[in-house]
Amino acid sequence: MNPVVPAETDVSARSPRHMLEVDDELMRDIEELTRSRSDYLLLNIIQDLYPADVAHLMDRMDHEESQYLFSLLANDIAREALLELDETHREYLLRTLPPDHINELVEGMESDDAADIVGSLPGDRAEAILKTLGVEKSSRVEELLRYGASTAGGLMAKEMAVVHGKDTVKRAIQVVRRLARKQKNVYTVYVTDDHDLLVGSVALQDLLLYAPNKRVHTLMTHDVLSVTTDVDQEEVAGIFRKYDIVSLPVTDAAGRLLGRITVDDIVDVLEEEHQEDVAKMVGSDAEELERRSPARIALMRLPWVLITLLIELGAGIVIHQFDATLAKVILLASFMPIISAISGNTGLQSAAIVVRGIATGHIDLNRWWIPVTRQLQTSVIIGGVCGSFIAVVGAVWHGHVTFGLVVGISMFISVNISGFVGTVTPMLSKRLGFDPAITAGPFETAFQDVVGISIFLSLATLLLHWL
Amino acid sequence: MNPVVPAETDVSARSPRHMLEVDDELMRDIEELTRSRSDYLLLNIIQDLYPADVAHLMDRMDHEESQYLFSLLANDIAREALLELDETHREYLLRTLPPDHINELVEGMESDDAADIVGSLPGDRAEAILKTLGVEKSSRVEELLRYGASTAGGLMAKEMAVVHGKDTVKRAIQVVRRLARKQKNVYTVYVTDDHDLLVGSVALQDLLLYAPNKRVHTLMTHDVLSVTTDVDQEEVAGIFRKYDIVSLPVTDAAGRLLGRITVDDIVDVLEEEHQEDVAKMVGSDAEELERRSPARIALMRLPWVLITLLIELGAGIVIHQFDATLAKVILLASFMPIISAISGNTGLQSAAIVVRGIATGHIDLNRWWIPVTRQLQTSVIIGGVCGSFIAVVGAVWHGHVTFGLVVGISMFISVNISGFVGTVTPMLSKRLGFDPAITAGPFETAFQDVVGISIFLSLATLLLHWL
Repeated sequence: MNPVVPAETDVSARSPRHMLEVDDELMRDIEELTRSRSDYLLLNIIQDLYPADVAHLMDRMDHEESQYLFSLLANDIAREALLELDETHREYLLRTLPPDHINELVEGMESDDAADIVGSLPGDRAEAILKTLGVEKSSRVEELLRYGASTAGGLMAKEMAVVHGKDTVKRAIQVVRRLARKQKNVYTVYVTDDHDLLVGSVALQDLLLYAPNKRVHTLMTHDVLSVTTDVDQEEVAGIFRKYDIVSLPVTDAAGRLLGRITVDDIVDVLEEEHQEDVAKMVGSDAEELERRSPARIALMRLPWVLITLLIELGAGIVIHQFDATLAKVILLASFMPIISAISGNTGLQSAAIVVRGIATGHIDLNRWWIPVTRQLQTSVIIGGVCGSFIAVVGAVWHGHVTFGLVVGISMFISVNISGFVGTVTPMLSKRLGFDPAITAGPFETAFQDVVGISIFLSLATLLLHWL
Repeated sequence: MNPVVPAETDVSARSPRHMLEVDDELMRDIEELTRSRSDYLLLNIIQDLYPADVAHLMDRMDHEESQYLFSLLANDIAREALLELDETHREYLLRTLPPDHINELVEGMESDDAADIVGSLPGDRAEAILKTLGVEKSSRVEELLRYGASTAGGLMAKEMAVVHGKDTVKRAIQVVRRLARKQKNVYTVYVTDDHDLLVGSVALQDLLLYAPNKRVHTLMTHDVLSVTTDVDQEEVAGIFRKYDIVSLPVTDAAGRLLGRITVDDIVDVLEEEHQEDVAKMVGSDAEELERRSPARIALMRLPWVLITLLIELGAGIVIHQFDATLAKVILLASFMPIISAISGNTGLQSAAIVVRGIATGHIDLNRWWIPVTRQLQTSVIIGGVCGSFIAVVGAVWHGHVTFGLVVGISMFISVNISGFVGTVTPMLSKRLGFDPAITAGPFETAFQDVVGISIFLSLATLLLHWL
């Protein structure tokens, strides 16, 4: 089954490129040709590839090979491929490419992409590039660089179709035409008033419905969703998702139109936020997916691992307090991992669900009791089932009903505490301004180990006489 | 800071609706008015809301209240709100709404949305609705219902702008106009040949660049990305992400154009796949985010919890084998949770990263040794640091260097095994056709508990003489 069916082609094509699908065989061929530096053959193949596929190929190569392949690319493909590359490969290229070449590439990019590239260069090189860019492009890039990378300002591009409300449909189409020659992603014409305030928008498809001499303000949509430059990218993505839009204008606090964000960038943001969530939940960093060195990955993870280790040392100390109990009934040790694993798991489930619920708006922090009640009801059932099961196992194994009661009741109590703590901590950290995903991480599990083992061994000590 | 700035409005508006931003106060007002059944006041507010916001409000209410609010909505808002609702609320509405009303709503929907609604109705009600729909709509919906819900066929809509290559630009614009009157999301005109085969496409913005009498085949892009109906939605989302596109045509195996997928649906797919990944990693189900009853949530989680419990019982049995060792050096029990937590954590980190890497294409299963080597190098560092640390703690605490060596070496070995197993299992399960996310779940951690504790207690027994 073939996911990408290349369409039939026509000899009278405007564009002579017939896109090739990149399969494993083609990849190996290209890698082979790259290694043997077969310029001519490579050029023949590469010009038929999508830039994203070229980038994917380069990601698989080592730095020198990918640099060589990049040097063969025409500027329009090189430009897009550069933007699609893995961070480490891009960094290498930007470090090694001659400034002239970077300049040529950046000059042709949309302002948001240009800002991403310039922003990732070291200070002096960035300055040098900015100086050689055209006046308009460099002032746009400089403006965009002032906004935080993960805010609406950092995501937006300056290139957009803007008309005045009194302009005609004909004029709006002219504006779109001029833009469309240089640029993709033109879906909407924005409408401003005398003070550059955003007052409306017209979808491209609607522009076609009206007579050329009609004034834009008579047909525009007045209630345009927009964001200010400081809105976080996760919130921006939420607006795209909720309202099913493909572009979103960005304004300053006064409502002056500054730029627009398109959905292709939002798809990347969603992926990025997703990776970050998952990485945080296991105590790592999304950057790990980029091809960082193992030493750097270990450095990213170690702080979380060491904190977890310290919390677990707490569990060790707790156990040490109960050495006498353990020494008397050594079988208790066999049930420690069971109780801590199940309660840790319940806590993690609740936390993960609550973290997602907060992110998607399913959970409203002002009505915190709703998820708390639901998760508690759930953990009562899970704790009940697991507690009963393990009570029977314990009673049979040790040959004592009391032993079964101790493990069963401990399981029940600690599962419920975990469910409660797992639900409350993400909401609390959100309230306090932290990222809720962090609290759903390994700390959660480690903390539940301490709690579960404490309850279990305390109860066992209390009832030691009957064990 | 205000994420959604409602734009200034103009009296000569085509649409008289001035969108309101939904804040907590407005929400409470609406809930109050809903409870007191104040039709008139509610109508006044609701008509100024985006359908997605109305749906969000309804999601917060109980079933009767949300049904009442829904009954007040005009059909065009009701239609969109219905599609945005939580599954449980939608199910309730579809169960209780009169068939005529459902029919009116479905008739006005795009075919993919209509198919979603009809597909969620019980068989006889679905039949009844299909019978009363217009011939064209019902045949489209019936076609879409034949495809799997999470495939390209299940995602696509039938409504699209299609012209023949020999048609003129003028004709293409006419086709777009006709479609634009009824429908949003028209970004692309698809071009077919005499046999309905997809041969090209023209972006709406490019259509504006050419003279009206120009033939479409002279200006179209020939190499159109497309998918066949059976491609999985995750793969489809990957194509949107990789190639930065807003719509994608869907064909049958022979290349005949059948429909198109737009990016707004893909944004939802990404969110859905994300939720599913996270839920699976903690041993639950993404459905949990919908407002299911605690009993149903517990039922979703219990199979995973019970399997985890059984694996942990294995750990208990392992510990039981070493009762004699534990009885002699009871402090060993204090270090069990530390070793199992850190190795479980390392395994989970590797697994989570590999699962994401597979999903995003960063990891190539044909070159499995690359991630394995990287994760192993990483776990050597983490195991080395944690092992050394815990060795010192152990030696000091127990007053014996050998004790420190036992805990340190056990930590090092089990962290490395975890890193290896955590890396290999997701790749292996992907190869075997399972979802890699499942293997990154609680099993991973439970399994590492068994391994870590076995190694630790074996080593301790081996060196018991010197402890």
